[in-house]
Amino acid sequence: LEAPTVTGSDAPGATVLSRAFAVLDSFSEGSAEQTLSSITGSTGLPPATVHRVLAALVGWGAVERTGRGRYRIGLHLWRLGSLAPQGRELRDVALPHLQDLLEVTHEVVHLVVVDEDQALYLERLESRPGVSVVSQVGGRLPLHATGPGKVLLAHAPTDVLDRVLEAGLSRHARGTITEPAELRRALAEIRQTGHSISRDEMTDGASSVAAPVTDAGGRVIAAISVVVRSGSPLLLPLVPAVRLAALGISREIGRRHLR
Amino acid sequence: LEAPTVTGSDAPGATVLSRAFAVLDSFSEGSAEQTLSSITGSTGLPPATVHRVLAALVGWGAVERTGRGRYRIGLHLWRLGSLAPQGRELRDVALPHLQDLLEVTHEVVHLVVVDEDQALYLERLESRPGVSVVSQVGGRLPLHATGPGKVLLAHAPTDVLDRVLEAGLSRHARGTITEPAELRRALAEIRQTGHSISRDEMTDGASSVAAPVTDAGGRVIAAISVVVRSGSPLLLPLVPAVRLAALGISREIGRRHLR
Repeated sequence: LEAPTVTGSDAPGATVLSRAFAVLDSFSEGSAEQTLSSITGSTGLPPATVHRVLAALVGWGAVERTGRGRYRIGLHLWRLGSLAPQGRELRDVALPHLQDLLEVTHEVVHLVVVDEDQALYLERLESRPGVSVVSQVGGRLPLHATGPGKVLLAHAPTDVLDRVLEAGLSRHARGTITEPAELRRALAEIRQTGHSISRDEMTDGASSVAAPVTDAGGRVIAAISVVVRSGSPLLLPLVPAVRLAALGISREIGRRHLR
Repeated sequence: LEAPTVTGSDAPGATVLSRAFAVLDSFSEGSAEQTLSSITGSTGLPPATVHRVLAALVGWGAVERTGRGRYRIGLHLWRLGSLAPQGRELRDVALPHLQDLLEVTHEVVHLVVVDEDQALYLERLESRPGVSVVSQVGGRLPLHATGPGKVLLAHAPTDVLDRVLEAGLSRHARGTITEPAELRRALAEIRQTGHSISRDEMTDGASSVAAPVTDAGGRVIAAISVVVRSGSPLLLPLVPAVRLAALGISREIGRRHLR
């Protein structure tokens, strides 16, 4: 059993909350369903504490218990999270344009924002199984290795690029940009042309066109992309369509004064 | 200032967590952006407590502070929530079928589940502004007044219907079913025919066709619907398409053994 947290003023409350946050953060794409012991292992918290925190989270609905002594994120948290403006207002504004893009291309369509120096996929549409891509709604991928990520990185504050370079440009596929100088050149070209073209950078066999979405002040707040099979003659002809959709979303965001 | 919570064993921790839950639950569709005082008002917690809880939630990323002393749900909570299996696995399986339905009909398409005796909208697709509907992704509407809601209610445990009837059948539009006997008849018909048809029940001017989605064991776990303008000759011809899409989703769910 853990030692009781008997310290002054704010400390116990802060400790209790930080433990609940740690338990929730132990859930991820790779471990969406967990046992008590896997949560204990990944948080480093004592089993009795994890058990107590889980009971409170289950009671609230943030976590659900499945049949076999496993835990997963519950619908209550999904519903709360859906109130986040980026997951809602931005998506709502973008969706008709993404749908049009899907209908015109029948390829995989993405809506992406920056989250903690990574590319967070807010939306992914596809109508039939085409090219194989690793993106998931709610999932994050490296900025430097994805089309929308490079667009966001090209327009991010310089300290984001500094941190990305410092963390190292991990290789994910045969075309991944792993040289800082090459990445800087690619980002400059994206700023100049207004779009990015990626070939086999995140996944071998997948290529994409991505373009920036801006707010009323011209600040880049998101990026959209369409992914096709590498070698497809569709790649370059997609550029005007993706840019057009991005401009349409940006115009609507400006009209609604979203940030 | 609030009184310090100095009681035995679990109590302080439970109190701290329940306060954090109360602060988070004060955010809703209608109040997605809040001030300190509106949260204080709706939770009944002392301002100092709300301030302290908010600071912790902002630190974690569950809540964001906007420019003007307002608070809103943050991307961190959106990302955690997106791990909920219903918001993810069910949606991922359903999406291609919903896309096909959208492409064939060009009307508003919904994916809905039961949450706390209400119809929770997991997904809403539309490609161009057509009929005006009040649904929002992450939003909830009454089971008895919506097409997918009636389908879910028709197949829910009887205690759900008991509670819905006990709460009273609120009127939302000129066609809303407000008589218990009439609702029971409608639900029996839905169970018999395999679909629901609603005219002006949630919104005047909007009609829908809805059908159930089942798991491998034949249990109804969700419903889908297509909404058209009331009076549209498309309504009845939509029935086979909506049922077909629901069967396609159900088949895929069975194949993947989702619950």
